[in-house]
Formats: sequence, structure tokens, C-alpha cells
Amino acid sequence: MKPAILLKGITILPMTQPEDLLEGDLMVRHGRIAYLGPSRNWEDEEGLEVYQGENKVAIPGFVNAHTHLGMTFLRGFADDMDLHTWLVDKIWPMETKLQPGDVYSFSLLGALELIAAGVTTFADMYWSMDEAARVVTECGIRASLSQALIVTGKDHPERYLEDGLRFALENRGAAEGRITTMLAPHAVYTCPPAFLKLVREAAMREGLGLHIHLSETQKEVEDCRSAYGATPPGLLQKLGLFELPILAIHCIWPEEGDFPILAQARGVVHCPTSNLKIAAGISPVTELLSSGINLALGTDGACSNNRLEMLQEIKTAAILAKARTGDPKALPAFQALQMATLGGARALGLEDQIGALEVGKQADIAIFDFDAPHLTPCFDPYSHLAYAALPSDVTAVMVQGRWLYKDRRFLTLDRQSVQQETVERVEKLMSR
Amino acid sequence: MKPAILLKGITILPMTQPEDLLEGDLMVRHGRIAYLGPSRNWEDEEGLEVYQGENKVAIPGFVNAHTHLGMTFLRGFADDMDLHTWLVDKIWPMETKLQPGDVYSFSLLGALELIAAGVTTFADMYWSMDEAARVVTECGIRASLSQALIVTGKDHPERYLEDGLRFALENRGAAEGRITTMLAPHAVYTCPPAFLKLVREAAMREGLGLHIHLSETQKEVEDCRSAYGATPPGLLQKLGLFELPILAIHCIWPEEGDFPILAQARGVVHCPTSNLKIAAGISPVTELLSSGINLALGTDGACSNNRLEMLQEIKTAAILAKARTGDPKALPAFQALQMATLGGARALGLEDQIGALEVGKQADIAIFDFDAPHLTPCFDPYSHLAYAALPSDVTAVMVQGRWLYKDRRFLTLDRQSVQQETVERVEKLMSR
Repeated sequence: MKPAILLKGITILPMTQPEDLLEGDLMVRHGRIAYLGPSRNWEDEEGLEVYQGENKVAIPGFVNAHTHLGMTFLRGFADDMDLHTWLVDKIWPMETKLQPGDVYSFSLLGALELIAAGVTTFADMYWSMDEAARVVTECGIRASLSQALIVTGKDHPERYLEDGLRFALENRGAAEGRITTMLAPHAVYTCPPAFLKLVREAAMREGLGLHIHLSETQKEVEDCRSAYGATPPGLLQKLGLFELPILAIHCIWPEEGDFPILAQARGVVHCPTSNLKIAAGISPVTELLSSGINLALGTDGACSNNRLEMLQEIKTAAILAKARTGDPKALPAFQALQMATLGGARALGLEDQIGALEVGKQADIAIFDFDAPHLTPCFDPYSHLAYAALPSDVTAVMVQGRWLYKDRRFLTLDRQSVQQETVERVEKLMSR
Repeated sequence: MKPAILLKGITILPMTQPEDLLEGDLMVRHGRIAYLGPSRNWEDEEGLEVYQGENKVAIPGFVNAHTHLGMTFLRGFADDMDLHTWLVDKIWPMETKLQPGDVYSFSLLGALELIAAGVTTFADMYWSMDEAARVVTECGIRASLSQALIVTGKDHPERYLEDGLRFALENRGAAEGRITTMLAPHAVYTCPPAFLKLVREAAMREGLGLHIHLSETQKEVEDCRSAYGATPPGLLQKLGLFELPILAIHCIWPEEGDFPILAQARGVVHCPTSNLKIAAGISPVTELLSSGINLALGTDGACSNNRLEMLQEIKTAAILAKARTGDPKALPAFQALQMATLGGARALGLEDQIGALEVGKQADIAIFDFDAPHLTPCFDPYSHLAYAALPSDVTAVMVQGRWLYKDRRFLTLDRQSVQQETVERVEKLMSR
């Protein structure tokens, strides 16, 4: 049984509405938020842990809505290259060498970075996802996991679907409910229509959502048009995939007819740093938002970012939207922060559980320490979080009312041994 | 007499050429780099301090080539607003209340942030610059300082020039040579041509350079054209200002004829975060570079960024250039890092003293700790610094061979008392 935890005298940003900000207490019981409001005198309670909140700011843990955690080991392995050389000469040859144990180890490495940066939920698409599920179970983070399906040019594509489906069904609801699962047809250029139809049938039958890259590059849109006479969202619509809950990644190049289609998605995930770094383009975020589309934020993999923390995505999303529209009022601080919290929760179908600090919701909380030169004075905590704070200002993180990180120390992972294991495995991979 | 310091067994990025990277020793004597090369057995030397370099990376301290340090207290005071409302309703009314003691205190606050992020030199344009000079003297950082000259609509503009000139002459070479000075006519829209001519004469006579905002917005360029029949760089050229060493800030909207003019400048300072956040535009950095223009990086003031650290500028510059050109090879990691080191040094006319790690140069060094999940493994330290590292990875900083920051602690400033003083002064300012 988890002890009750009282965050005492702390600044609380529930992320429901800007004006809901308050100074007060937040009580966690049985992994959920049991009270949130003005400071009270609490009765002595056996085993109650009191966390003093002076200079601290509590917000819903960030949702990183698009990652490839198993490739974290390739950060900095190949940058500043054209996409084809990068993938074909560098990334893919390394990935084909990966053993399940490698994916386990490299996902642990990524989990360290996520947790220390206040990310409490991530949506991952990769291979050997049973290993990622082990990592989630062990370290206490929350995740939406899906096995990547890349089948173009492969024999028996249905086998990939079978394995993705097996993974999704075996793991959904695992780790005390922290794991949810989806099917992940990688993209329209790696999954032909016939296969996408099979994915649709399986997802419909089993009540699963889809995690898919969509309209990431102009070339993808052009190729899709010439092959199928439709944009990528248009093709999915035609195949009936938008009848399912869809997590649509990137969507940098929507055409006019795509906006109402994308509005049916559970969420579009904006990955601004990755989009800039691989020169994919600049997403029309303000137009997507004004079309009623739910926007989430994601880092993408460590190769194309090269970080897994969300403050960078929040700030980059906010300032890039201003430059793109020529309007410094576009995508203000609160809205950008909400994309990284409630927007992410909605995109994963978890808004009844996480994404905001409210009584009854899961206690997934990131706590920032504002006692720092770059956060002094503080006129507006939303501004500070969106524009000035750094991942290192995160001092404590809990998921389901369990501390994963406290006083900037990991409580469920051994940082040094995870790093050491990574280095040894990478050396072996390089010599294979 | 400063003790000798040996950085032992450390990764050294001299930032001269990519291939100059080495693992070895770096010896500092009398504030300068005395040796840099393979590890040696050093004779016992009285008072020699040995700094163990395992997992550490030494680079030239960053040059933040454009700041307004005295306004650091206004960070987060007014964001997500149009430029006019921001300046007229928010920033200027606060700035008119500032006393010299405030500028001293707020510049100290900014210095804390700069030092902790590995910035060893900054180029500042603000008011009450005698206070900024006091801060530089006391905390041990290096700076190019200049009193902002805004005279349009003011009586006796020559008085402002006199005071800016007095400051520049009194302080040049102060603080053991760490202070250099310039004249800072703020911009072409705040300094009429007649005044710019006076500035030119004074600068010529006294051998001073100029620090000036140039072509920051499309409106500035249009207004300059209608008033004077020339672009802002064209106007300065016509007035003979490019015969002086010029530090030209922003230059987001150069027209074709401006490129050869700007190539005469000592440096153009790219401030990508500020440019995006106030929706000024996206600078054509790759075109500026290919015209032979020396590029430096700056944060601008804490109001329009809202950080004073350089890793964000390095990364944003690099990834924005890729998106703007559609070429992921544009502005690679090393080149972006060089803009923040040697490019900045050149822009301030200090390339014979700082900006690279070379024997005989000043020992202005930032040391990163790479023992962190997000920097493990390390294939390429340039990539990690440009794309993955965080300001909190800076573990030690020295200027002129003197530690200002070590084991993530300030050695020349009392962080808590500077923050406390700031908070008290801000409360007084708000109630005035």
C-alpha cells in the first residue's frame, strides 16, 4: 500500500485553465490526487509523507507523445546529413544489429532522461516492444506502447501485424494500468493500403488505437498522391482508418481538405525540434489548432532531436508559431504548456486519468524548483516554464503517487549502471 | 599571483578546426593557456592545482554577443504581446523607474545565469553602464560594454553621446583588461543621421567600435527607406559608419546590396530565439555566411528570449537554418558552436585573446560534465554540445585562469543574496 503524500504550501498549476493556478496543498492517496486547494491543518496521519513546497511549482507530468526510445543510443551518431544517407547508411545498419536486450538497455537509458525532465508518460513506437514494456514496469513511468509495422517489400506482412497485435493485447493494462497499447502502422509509404486495411480490421475488432507518422515531408505527400490519388490523411480516411482513434505524428504538410480529416484524430503530435533538424518543414500549428484539432507535443527519437525533454518542444513550438505567423501573440505560454500536458493526455485517450491536476486523477506530477537565478523574480510561472525553465529545474517526479525522482535522484533506476551497460552494449554493436 | 591550474586528462575542443579535438592536458599559467596537448608527467609545482578531467569536456567559454543585462529582472513580465504594447505599456514604464543600484543588482543576477551556463564574455548595451562595469569587475567575467544611445525626439542629443563616450573611455581596459568598450547608437530609428555622424566622429577620434541594432524588422527597413532612401546598412554605409568596427545586431532583413556592406562589419550577431519570440523573422544565416560575413550568436535581453544561455542559441541557429533552407546539412554542429565562440570573439575584436583554446590565449574556459544519461554514449562531442547538452551540464568555468564556477558552485558571487536583493528591489519598483 502506497503511503499518502502531502505537497505542502506549493504553487500548483492544474493546467485546466490559466486562472486555476493556486498556492496551497495537494494530497495524494492511493496513487491519486485526493485534495487540491488552500493550505489546511492536516490531522496526523500514520505514514503521511510531507513534502515542503517552498519555491516549488507542481504541474501535471509532461506527456511526450512521440518517441522511439530504443534508438536513444544513436544520439549524435549521425547528424547534419541528408535524410536518405542518414537512414540508409547510418541508422538502419545499426538498427538491424539490435538484439532485444539492447532495446531493453537503451530504453532504460531513455527512461532516465524522460524522468529527470518531468516526463511521466511517453508514446513509443519501435521494435522489441516487450522490452520497452519491461522498462515501464520496472521504472514506474507510464506509456502508450506500440510495435512499429514496416512491411513494404516484405513477405507475409500479416505476420508483423500478428506480432504487433499480440504485443498490444498481452500488454494493455499491464504495470498496474500504466501501460496502454496501440497498433503502429509506421506510415503510408511503409504500409500499403491492403495492409492498412488489415490493421484497421484488427484494431476495430480489438478496440485499439493507431500510432502513425503522417504528412511528415512534402515528398511523402507527393508520392502518396501519385500512388493513390490522395494525401496521406485522405488515404487513411478512404480506407476507414479515421473511424479508429488515431495518434497522427507530424502532419507538417496538410492540404486544405486534410484539416477536417485530422480533426477526427485523437491528436496530432507536433515535433518541432525534429521537424527543423531534419529539415522536414514547419508545421502550421495555429491553423491546425483553429480547425479544432487536438495538438500534443513530442520529441521524436534521440537521433533527430537530440533530446527527449519537453521544455525545448514547448518553447520551440511557441516561438516558431510566432515567427511563422508574424504574430508574437500566437501560441502563448499556457497553450504551449497545455499541449505538453492535457493535449498529450487527450491524444492518448487518457484525459480522464492524467494531463491535469484534479481530484480523482492519477498523481502523475512534476515538481520544479524555482530557486534559481534564471527563474528569479517570478511574475508568471507559465511564462517561466514555457520560456525560461530548464530540465534541470525539475527536482521531483511522481507517477501514480510513487516517487520516481526526488531531490534530483532516481529512486527506481540506477543511473550509473544503466549508463555503463549502455556503453558496453554500444561497443559490442559497433564491433559486430 | 594566480596559481597554475592543470586540466588533466580532459577532452579538449579548441574550436579552431574540428580535427583539433584531443584528449590530453591543458595547463593554465598567469591567466593564459601555457600548454595544450597530450597528457604528460608534470613536475611537482608549488601551488599547482590539478583538475581531474575524466568525463569532462573543455571548450572556449561562450561569447554572448548581444545582451541587455540590466533588464534581466523583467523576464516573464510581459510575453506573447505585440511589440508596441510590449514596449510602450510594459517595458519602458518599468525601465524609466530604474535607479543605478537596480541596474547593478539586476546585472549581477544576469551574471549568475551567464557564468553558470559557461558564458565567459558578453557584449552589453544598456543604461547606467558604470554599474555593469562594477559587476564585471567584481564577478570576474569578461565583457564588451556600451551605453545605449537613444536620442530621437530628445533635446541636446550630444549630451547622451558625451556620457556614452565618457563611459567608454573611463572603462576601456578596466578589470585587468577584461572590459572593452564601444559606442552604442541604438538603431537607425532612434538615432537620426546627424547624430550618427557625431557618433562616427567620436568613435573615429577615440578608436572605438559601434554596437548597433540593424534591420531587425521589416518595418525598420521600410521606414528607413522612406525616410532616407536607403536600407539601414545602406544608410550607415553612406554616413561612413562602416569605416569603424561594427557589431551589427540581428540583420534579419538584408537586401541584396546589404551583403557586401555587412561583410565589412566585425560581426553580425544572430539572436534566433529573440527573433522568433517577438516574430521579427528568420535570419538568412547561410546566405550571410556564404557572403563572407562573420556570424556571432547572442541571446538578446531576458525579456525577449527568456534565457541568457548560449546552448539554446547554438541549437536553434543550427536547426532553424536547416528548416529555412530545406537542407539538413546546413549549419552543422561545429559551425554553430564556432559562431558562439570564435565568431563572437572576432565580432568583439578579441580573437587574438579569446574564442579558441590555444597556447598564449586567455584561459577563458567552460567545462562540461558528460557523465549524464542524455550525453551517454558520446560519438561526437560537437554534436552533443550543439544538440543535446544543457546549461546544467556546465560544471566549471574560468576566466583569465580564475575559477568563477566550480563543481556547479559560484566562487565570486553569492547566489542567494543576489536573488534576495533582486526580489526586494523588484517589489519596490512595482510599488513606485
